[in-house]
Amino acid sequence: MPCGADPLVRAGRPRPALRSQGRPRTRAPAPQEQVDAPLTCRYTGDLTTAAQYVHGYSAREAERLADQAGTLAGLLHHDTVYPPGSLVLECGCGTGAQTEILASRNPGARIVSVDISEESLEQARARVEAAGHRNVEFRTANLFDLPFDDDRFDHVFLCFVLEHLKVPAAALQALKRVLRRGGTITAIEGDHGSWYCHPHTEEASRAVQCLVDLQARLGGDALVGRRLYPLLAQAGFRDARVSPRMVYVDNSRPDLVEGFSKNTFIAMVEGVRDQALSLGLIDARTWEKGIADMYRATGPDGTFCYTFFKGVAAR
Amino acid sequence: MPCGADPLVRAGRPRPALRSQGRPRTRAPAPQEQVDAPLTCRYTGDLTTAAQYVHGYSAREAERLADQAGTLAGLLHHDTVYPPGSLVLECGCGTGAQTEILASRNPGARIVSVDISEESLEQARARVEAAGHRNVEFRTANLFDLPFDDDRFDHVFLCFVLEHLKVPAAALQALKRVLRRGGTITAIEGDHGSWYCHPHTEEASRAVQCLVDLQARLGGDALVGRRLYPLLAQAGFRDARVSPRMVYVDNSRPDLVEGFSKNTFIAMVEGVRDQALSLGLIDARTWEKGIADMYRATGPDGTFCYTFFKGVAAR
Repeated sequence: MPCGADPLVRAGRPRPALRSQGRPRTRAPAPQEQVDAPLTCRYTGDLTTAAQYVHGYSAREAERLADQAGTLAGLLHHDTVYPPGSLVLECGCGTGAQTEILASRNPGARIVSVDISEESLEQARARVEAAGHRNVEFRTANLFDLPFDDDRFDHVFLCFVLEHLKVPAAALQALKRVLRRGGTITAIEGDHGSWYCHPHTEEASRAVQCLVDLQARLGGDALVGRRLYPLLAQAGFRDARVSPRMVYVDNSRPDLVEGFSKNTFIAMVEGVRDQALSLGLIDARTWEKGIADMYRATGPDGTFCYTFFKGVAAR
Repeated sequence: MPCGADPLVRAGRPRPALRSQGRPRTRAPAPQEQVDAPLTCRYTGDLTTAAQYVHGYSAREAERLADQAGTLAGLLHHDTVYPPGSLVLECGCGTGAQTEILASRNPGARIVSVDISEESLEQARARVEAAGHRNVEFRTANLFDLPFDDDRFDHVFLCFVLEHLKVPAAALQALKRVLRRGGTITAIEGDHGSWYCHPHTEEASRAVQCLVDLQARLGGDALVGRRLYPLLAQAGFRDARVSPRMVYVDNSRPDLVEGFSKNTFIAMVEGVRDQALSLGLIDARTWEKGIADMYRATGPDGTFCYTFFKGVAAR
């Protein structure tokens, strides 16, 4: 959730969901994605960098995102399958967390992964090469000005990109241009409003709501998951099918208690504490109780729920 | 959501979830399920009847429940499979909406379906016989005083029962007694706190919250779905596995728009309008906007989400 950067910058890593590592970026914002609320940024530096990314760049954040990527790969990607010979555009690849999964699951497909950041692409390239995949080409590109002919790709893929955009429908339209007729687009997004737990408390809900409010101030939409279907339909894609991917966690699933509930979701919420308090979105006492209540819901008698949404549509 | 009745009465039809028809009941309340808040009841009659069922008994309510049963059967029951020769107890069968599904999907199993209401059992018997099933025996029984020996059944099944109980763990323990070692219990419950929609509005959330508040005043728990795992574990069952069953509705699924969003869920919320207003849980203007917003979310650009939970555990 970086702010003050162009769409691919703002969609860049680290993301609230599947990115494995994050670094500041250095490109200017695209006009349609200009940020309205720089005061919500954690850092007060140049708005053309992504140092204002709401979740920050701490070691704990990097660890959180790595936990998340590993935990969720099967849930989100088991059915991301492209026929051998397909040409696939991955938009906003960041440091390649999804790229590695796409390449591994689709060894016969040719994947073009683009991002606005040269630095990120270097990391992505190293990651994918280290994993032994030879079917990925990396290119620098701006989502709203893609350096590809019309109808170039058989399929388009993007994950945790739309949540950061003020006008996600415009991004989908830009991607539609480079997709051949009959090709598919796949978009995966989270939805922070889908979270709940047991025991349920008002304070925990208010702490999570801070994330939603902060992302809104940055021009994004933390509730974009539930909106995927109308977004795809409005962009003119056809046969859109959206499927929820719910993460349900109870004490019988200790890997998810650690990898998702604690190290992904609660860590993400905790990461915006200072911003939420300084903006007066919540008072310190409510915040602390909310976080404590969330941890309580990871205990033996607790449960934890969150839903991602995956949409596939055809041009 | 009847009030002032014993557990099976209170768990009786019509229910907020899968019941197909509802009638008042006439049995006295069990001590442990005595209701604290009779003022929340729609009717002011004898508390020993179920006429206080929060959703009422109108023709529209009967239609709502029928829509719901048909719409959700596959989602909730596709994996309710018992081996031929199994002896299965269905607890709180009401008028037999689930019984018919169980009998149909498990022709080799012998099913004993119990309810506290003779009148309901008559309807259930007629329904199951009309469907041509011969593998069901109906008996009058109180959940907390079951007329069966210890270890009698191979499997136990209950659906939309626990949500109405003040002490659901006690019900599970009563059922455990009649289940043989190694046998399974299957419990299905909804969770009104899992609902959300797009476009999201505060008023719509507040209208739904009225349902949660009313059920709490009646001694029940509209958020029991997320609580299934700890309930089963606390009752001493082992190997509990809970799976969420999410109903996701967008404009590509017109059957769910009508059968679930409008005719099941919104209709259920609308059914508590008078109680919610008379108790001051919400003001009329907020209520009307909330309902209008929910209908808007059933339109071409809207989406609608609700999650049921299904738990299976072994004795």
